[in-house]
Amino acid sequence: MAPSVAVENLNPKVLKCEYAVRGEIVIHAQRLQQQLQTQPGSLPFDEILYCNIGNPQSLGQQPVTFFREVLALCDHPSLLEKEETKSLFSADAISRAKRILSTIPGRATGAYSHSQGIKGLRDAIAAGIALRDGFPANADDIFVTDGASPGVHMMMQLLLRDEKDGILCPIPQYPLYSASIALHGGTLIPYYLDEKTGWGLEISELKKQLEDARSKGIDVRALVVINPGNPTGQVLAEDNQCDIVRFCKNEGLVLLADEVYQENIYVDDKKFNSFKKIARSIGYGEDDLPLVSFQSVSKGYYGECGKRGGYMEITGFSASVREQVYKIASVNLCSNITGQILASLIMNPPKVNYMAFFKLCPDRKCQTVQLKISALFCRKGMNHMLPTRQRKMESFNL
Amino acid sequence: MAPSVAVENLNPKVLKCEYAVRGEIVIHAQRLQQQLQTQPGSLPFDEILYCNIGNPQSLGQQPVTFFREVLALCDHPSLLEKEETKSLFSADAISRAKRILSTIPGRATGAYSHSQGIKGLRDAIAAGIALRDGFPANADDIFVTDGASPGVHMMMQLLLRDEKDGILCPIPQYPLYSASIALHGGTLIPYYLDEKTGWGLEISELKKQLEDARSKGIDVRALVVINPGNPTGQVLAEDNQCDIVRFCKNEGLVLLADEVYQENIYVDDKKFNSFKKIARSIGYGEDDLPLVSFQSVSKGYYGECGKRGGYMEITGFSASVREQVYKIASVNLCSNITGQILASLIMNPPKVNYMAFFKLCPDRKCQTVQLKISALFCRKGMNHMLPTRQRKMESFNL
Repeated sequence: MAPSVAVENLNPKVLKCEYAVRGEIVIHAQRLQQQLQTQPGSLPFDEILYCNIGNPQSLGQQPVTFFREVLALCDHPSLLEKEETKSLFSADAISRAKRILSTIPGRATGAYSHSQGIKGLRDAIAAGIALRDGFPANADDIFVTDGASPGVHMMMQLLLRDEKDGILCPIPQYPLYSASIALHGGTLIPYYLDEKTGWGLEISELKKQLEDARSKGIDVRALVVINPGNPTGQVLAEDNQCDIVRFCKNEGLVLLADEVYQENIYVDDKKFNSFKKIARSIGYGEDDLPLVSFQSVSKGYYGECGKRGGYMEITGFSASVREQVYKIASVNLCSNITGQILASLIMNPPKVNYMAFFKLCPDRKCQTVQLKISALFCRKGMNHMLPTRQRKMESFNL
Repeated sequence: MAPSVAVENLNPKVLKCEYAVRGEIVIHAQRLQQQLQTQPGSLPFDEILYCNIGNPQSLGQQPVTFFREVLALCDHPSLLEKEETKSLFSADAISRAKRILSTIPGRATGAYSHSQGIKGLRDAIAAGIALRDGFPANADDIFVTDGASPGVHMMMQLLLRDEKDGILCPIPQYPLYSASIALHGGTLIPYYLDEKTGWGLEISELKKQLEDARSKGIDVRALVVINPGNPTGQVLAEDNQCDIVRFCKNEGLVLLADEVYQENIYVDDKKFNSFKKIARSIGYGEDDLPLVSFQSVSKGYYGECGKRGGYMEITGFSASVREQVYKIASVNLCSNITGQILASLIMNPPKVNYMAFFKLCPDRKCQTVQLKISALFCRKGMNHMLPTRQRKMESFNL
């Protein structure tokens, strides 16, 4: 009898899927690493650093103390009843852990939660989004996920019926998109970023590719935009984002906004704007545009890849479509609670206590205050705790 | 223009999928709960207990202290350098956390791991399986997952090409199976458990349903067995399991063994045997049977549902098929590290220190030792820490 399971009789979508980030090169590197262990000195190097994926803590970046203190206290809440805890943990972390636990029924961090995530944590995430964007956000729109990837898969699973359904994706891209489109049996419609203009996204290119796909009978369902870009690092300008939003509305496309690099901006003249903020700024409401924003605890200054936390914020979907998303989420019960807590923390990091700095600097001269803030945070090793926008001390205005 | 995303143009597999565990009844219960909050006294009850899914910590079961201590220390490893930690945490937990961290490169619990899970944790899981079964287990066969569900999805995604591919599933079943088969576009072939014989699994029934499906042109790829049963609670007898294993080999079926309830046996005359142990006991090796065993941290005496930990042990797949499983796992990068650590802990719970009990009981009479062990564990509230097989003190033999 032929083997009951062989490559020849597997799901062809699985065979078609490619995922270079963890593919042949990584497997080869693992082989070399094993060789280094079993035959030291047999290769012209003695260590392998894996830079195939953004994984800062594997390269020595230390986690933010505050986040880890809160997680430890939530993992073992009875620590909060012990006197020694006050000397081992910061007062901020103790108070945050208590607040988080109070939103979890029975303080049970080992119970399945609501399939969208614990309501109190979604409230915190929504508050963080609202503060970032200046527009309201709703906890009911948040689906907390194990990193951003499961959210992307869920949307592909929802939208793709067969290979006649297409998704517009940037090239160069993060290979999750090509992989998940292949796994769910759809067609990737590439649009090319322009290296000459700093990997710019041209509406004319989007239009060209969309029309080309439609002429081949493809029903283009959605546009993926990665902003800030991965792997290109570009930060889209506000005007460009407005054009993209209008394009999606006019062409009837779902906008899938990969915004996981929102804290990774390394130049002073660029600024992250969420697509939801842009859409609301030009007066688009829920009915104008189905929009999904993906966020992750793995990127930014936090880089907590292994904790698998993230969320998607879904707006502009009808109640009946939303129910289908909820159903898919519920089949996997819920995302991990540690990742859920961390997602609420990165969207609500500790705030600078301005009053404390006033006391440090009674003459209230900005320059001096800034220097003292920087010095204090560097001394405490806390500079990573400030999000990009707060780290830019030169634009700090008391 | 028609709405770009509407129920009518979603993936029909998503629409077909049903998941009652989190479906209409739960949504109705949530509505009633909200009513209780906004209009207290408006219903003839004042609290809703959710028993729609096994979720013990939501109903007040406390987590095992040892597990949570280890997780807290791994979340915040710098605690291990503090003197106060020795009085806050048990020596066992400190030593286990150190051992676990030593297997994680850079002690980085926030880094993505190998897509199958951290090698040292898989070694620990394999050691636990080998101890349980009395047959060797290999860390390379272990895929650590966010609970058992993603493993089941992965296997369905791998095996199901279209609706002409079928999976034999028990009825009554856990609805994950019908849901994941629908989502991946295959056909569920039901086989019926017999209530009269304590929800027994009859080979004649399997044969009948298999032949019936084949006569309709269905290519039956796999047999799902849930043992101990969910929702039926039956524990299969060894003879019955031997017959099932032979049936799968003869019919060329992958055996998908849902063994997540292996610690939930409530009668003295029944015993859990893994299907791998049974297969090896009757002399079947890797080449005889493709076999996948699913395990989870959510069930058993641990009940750590919200941590989303679990694994699948895959044996009898060719290297090239295994590569495809690895590829699917790698698209989602890795499972959450907290869940990975917990999976290693449940497969290696703290052991009874027999020498300590000898000291307690110098006359070495079993009965007395047993009583003292029980008393000690009850006094310390640690009786949940002993797996079923150790809790059965009457069979304890020094």
